[in-house]
Amino acid sequence: MPTTPTVLAIDLGGTTVKAGLVSGVGDVLYQNKLPTLPDKGPDVVIGQIEAALRDVMEKGAFPSLSAIGIGAPGVVDDAGVVKAPPNLKGWDEVHLAEELSERFPGFKVVVENDANVAAIAESKFGAGKQFSEFLFVIWGTGVGGGIILENKIFRGPSGGAGEIGHISIDHQGPACNCGSRGCIEAYIGQRYLSQRTVEKLNAGATSSLPDLVGGDLTKIEPVYLAQAAQAGDSFSKGVLVEAGTLLGVAIAAVMNTLDLRISIIGGGVSAAGDFVLEAIEESVRRHVLKPLRPGIRVLEATQGNAAGLLGAAGLVL
Amino acid sequence: MPTTPTVLAIDLGGTTVKAGLVSGVGDVLYQNKLPTLPDKGPDVVIGQIEAALRDVMEKGAFPSLSAIGIGAPGVVDDAGVVKAPPNLKGWDEVHLAEELSERFPGFKVVVENDANVAAIAESKFGAGKQFSEFLFVIWGTGVGGGIILENKIFRGPSGGAGEIGHISIDHQGPACNCGSRGCIEAYIGQRYLSQRTVEKLNAGATSSLPDLVGGDLTKIEPVYLAQAAQAGDSFSKGVLVEAGTLLGVAIAAVMNTLDLRISIIGGGVSAAGDFVLEAIEESVRRHVLKPLRPGIRVLEATQGNAAGLLGAAGLVL
Repeated sequence: MPTTPTVLAIDLGGTTVKAGLVSGVGDVLYQNKLPTLPDKGPDVVIGQIEAALRDVMEKGAFPSLSAIGIGAPGVVDDAGVVKAPPNLKGWDEVHLAEELSERFPGFKVVVENDANVAAIAESKFGAGKQFSEFLFVIWGTGVGGGIILENKIFRGPSGGAGEIGHISIDHQGPACNCGSRGCIEAYIGQRYLSQRTVEKLNAGATSSLPDLVGGDLTKIEPVYLAQAAQAGDSFSKGVLVEAGTLLGVAIAAVMNTLDLRISIIGGGVSAAGDFVLEAIEESVRRHVLKPLRPGIRVLEATQGNAAGLLGAAGLVL
Repeated sequence: MPTTPTVLAIDLGGTTVKAGLVSGVGDVLYQNKLPTLPDKGPDVVIGQIEAALRDVMEKGAFPSLSAIGIGAPGVVDDAGVVKAPPNLKGWDEVHLAEELSERFPGFKVVVENDANVAAIAESKFGAGKQFSEFLFVIWGTGVGGGIILENKIFRGPSGGAGEIGHISIDHQGPACNCGSRGCIEAYIGQRYLSQRTVEKLNAGATSSLPDLVGGDLTKIEPVYLAQAAQAGDSFSKGVLVEAGTLLGVAIAAVMNTLDLRISIIGGGVSAAGDFVLEAIEESVRRHVLKPLRPGIRVLEATQGNAAGLLGAAGLVL
């Protein structure tokens, strides 16, 4: 029997719904996984969430606290309304907290944006445990983030805080999907970074990357860049160092604005190796004001795939 | 007799020390001014502050609350230690709150950075009264700022928050004094903006500016740009619109990061005319994420020269 309180946690993704029983010290005592069925509309998806939770309560254990924490894509407002998550069909505005409160009477239900949830996971259980203030950055398909201030997530007035992917590092830079120019995401988000890599290869760069994707450059993704770099490919390493250096410029803007020193980097690309984190750190240090420099640190997130469940639990623990 | 509480306020500048008796509704009931004597070291400057305060208590009135609020240049930490204000000699670290507490026993003394103080003035008495969250920008010699969240100043972990002047809007842009590149201050701070203006004039631009400075282009300052623009000089107007557009890029980074919508612009240049504020606002709107756009507003600060005393009073009211 766990000696700390336990709660229910949901990690709602575009592909799978994960549910878990999580203890107050961050142990996932039981977990399961169901398909999200994202094309079938909110009712079906909420049904999957409910089924996953009921399974935990039957096969796992009933939580000691009547509380459910949920991480969801999209913008989540203070009332637990999920707005326009990119991968869920028909979710313009879904009052997820209310829906689950009705299905689980007596339970406290808290819903939060998934990047914020991952930031909370690092804050409570991961690389951020020792810091009361830091910026969490998720670098994968896009670039997102969460801001921890005084050990709590800073949501902003309407829950949209932490969108650091759309900080422009060059007002005349490449066009971004968001309508602005030079957003850091438009340099280092998965699609953009892959494109830039292919352009460089087409321009004649020497690399082991093409072999990794069987010669089909359209298959190039940051994960292969990481793999090739780890195997010693200096071209791939160079591309990632350049990307990290650019990310550092955007992070520095946040450090200067909020008087912060610590960044924790999660998402697929951050795992490529220490050289990427070092490139980010050096760049942040170069671009912040002098009084901040000695304290600048860029750390790797430690919670990986578990961050979704752990952070969701952290919402109600 | 005032029917609201009154406190003492100090606006410590590089040239003058202003002291005042301020009421809870933002009326300056009495004020005076002494030279700062910035070259004579902290003891002399603190003596001037004390003299100015004693004068208020004698000729003005004794405050109804035993409290002194002080706005000071430089970084100010939570304990009221002033660090390295650029225009005060020998002020590496001066414990100003402690010094004044000793001179005024029984008084609560709160010291805050001057940009933050101006932000507080706008929040309590000025253009920010109706907003619980906004970014205050001071655009003058340099570019600084203060962040108001939930009606309070956000100082950051060590009091340095709001340094938006060193957000880079082009990582390959012009070198800034701070060591970074492309900082917004390196485009629109007084010296940089004047330089850029002179360069354009030397390149043959037609303008009434040279007449305004008697043909001596080294005398060109943003205040003349504002004057010429108001008199219909389209070159000067263009320079200021361009500067405002660039400022908008940096402000947008803050809006995206903190989920904010409102900016309030103070400092000399902001008074040039509505067209500057409109240029900033249009640029902010263009560079923020879509959900923020409808709410974006850029307003002119209303407290001007009084902001220093009013905001200082706001620290202890």
